[in-house]
Amino acid sequence: VTADVLALVQFAAGPDGISTTGHRVVPVGDPVLSALDLAATRGDGVFETISVGRGAPQALEPHLVRFARSARMLDLPAPDLDAWRAIVLDVAGRLAAHDEAWIKTVLTRGVEGADVPTAWASGAPSADFSAARTEGVAVALLDRGVRSDVASSSPWLLAGAKTLSYAVNMAAKREAARRGADDVVFVSTDGALLEGPTATLILRRGDLLSTPRADLGILAGTTQADVFAWAHEHGLRTEHALLSPSDLASADAAWLVSSVRHAAPLRAVDGAPLAVDVELSNAMNRFLATRVR
Amino acid sequence: VTADVLALVQFAAGPDGISTTGHRVVPVGDPVLSALDLAATRGDGVFETISVGRGAPQALEPHLVRFARSARMLDLPAPDLDAWRAIVLDVAGRLAAHDEAWIKTVLTRGVEGADVPTAWASGAPSADFSAARTEGVAVALLDRGVRSDVASSSPWLLAGAKTLSYAVNMAAKREAARRGADDVVFVSTDGALLEGPTATLILRRGDLLSTPRADLGILAGTTQADVFAWAHEHGLRTEHALLSPSDLASADAAWLVSSVRHAAPLRAVDGAPLAVDVELSNAMNRFLATRVR
Repeated sequence: VTADVLALVQFAAGPDGISTTGHRVVPVGDPVLSALDLAATRGDGVFETISVGRGAPQALEPHLVRFARSARMLDLPAPDLDAWRAIVLDVAGRLAAHDEAWIKTVLTRGVEGADVPTAWASGAPSADFSAARTEGVAVALLDRGVRSDVASSSPWLLAGAKTLSYAVNMAAKREAARRGADDVVFVSTDGALLEGPTATLILRRGDLLSTPRADLGILAGTTQADVFAWAHEHGLRTEHALLSPSDLASADAAWLVSSVRHAAPLRAVDGAPLAVDVELSNAMNRFLATRVR
Repeated sequence: VTADVLALVQFAAGPDGISTTGHRVVPVGDPVLSALDLAATRGDGVFETISVGRGAPQALEPHLVRFARSARMLDLPAPDLDAWRAIVLDVAGRLAAHDEAWIKTVLTRGVEGADVPTAWASGAPSADFSAARTEGVAVALLDRGVRSDVASSSPWLLAGAKTLSYAVNMAAKREAARRGADDVVFVSTDGALLEGPTATLILRRGDLLSTPRADLGILAGTTQADVFAWAHEHGLRTEHALLSPSDLASADAAWLVSSVRHAAPLRAVDGAPLAVDVELSNAMNRFLATRVR
């Protein structure tokens, strides 16, 4: 999945610190990063992935807010959200021919010793996720090895920040594939359902949608938030809760929701089938395809 | 700490997979990486940092073995160790004017979708670590949030692999600085001393040197291994053990050892002074400055 569009963010160092002066679109094949950039040597930066429908970014403001929050958790310079909004809109406009596309925004600590961040946005048409959205995904439950209270007890663990240090998330997806599954739901050492490597978990029990509490060291999901707001308008109740694997096994339905793949119903958990709620999945995905904010 | 030398590794894709065809030295200021390289977007790769004394790499073979082991843990293509040995020796030769230098070797999963790794080696003269080696470092004990059995129970957590996903290690060092400390010793949720973000812990109790067991989800230290071999020749006993914070508090002395900084005695733990064993520290560092393997 290489990108179609790449925009480099330009910074200037002044007496008041670093300011963002603009961006320029460059050929995606160009080498643009130093091998000494802390993104490449330490995974030291943050990102967001934003979906784009016919040129319109979705949930742009919540993504920008979360981008700034992640940067703050890593003691990075605060991203200039007005500049980032303009960058995302520029890149999105270049993808307006596509029904569905994605844009990734990246902010790194820059080249070691240079004290200037590095940043870019890349984008491309999305892959075809219709099978995941309709037939669903099989997930493996995998131990994340961490307690569910680390976000409050140990902020240096960066739980809940969307960092570039995603090697474990990628390794978990490979482990899932080895087990014949498509995706992962992480579980804390104290038995709490957490999240997928790149998605938020939602369960349905009757007319109640439940998602793991954000204080359990997980990312606050932008797509999950939009699904919950939509659900309220459609007579469903919602909660942020402490959920266990047995809650998932006995749920009426479950989904992994994320910006680009939207809502993927879970059709199996560790090999045990789970019912796919076709009607609600389709309704969620129709909503997610058209939302703009 | 920018580098003085940068060598890019060249690969060719053939019928038998990826082969390493050589390397070329390029100006360190050149942008050489794609913004779509998985090193930069996912911290998805592995590295080693090797010390160099007057152009001679130290502990080169153990570093190469560990580099290959980390790559295997991440399902990366096996590094061609003969090619890497030649690359390190070439870069080291360019640093022969310096008493002490370092070389970092990096292997990434490459540009997303390209199925060819990216790799480079960078190097530079080392900073002056004489204060850390003689006066010692103050450390903060920080929760790593993980159980000590994750290396065996949950290999997808990549415990013990030297990956590019080091954002948490860097955040822990910033937390230590906020607490007025110079470095960190991580502790598992079940109370085991683990390691520093970029160093291995050694305690001395009488004539016994102890280091945390490598099966506790930590990196097997190349410098620690050399120190233990040297200690045997000098009448000290050694062990790999399950150690607790109280073992550290009551130790006769302790060190964080690493490839480039060598042996830094711990002068304080969470603000409580620890005795610096000046004689043994100096002897260790004299040995570490001159070892070649």
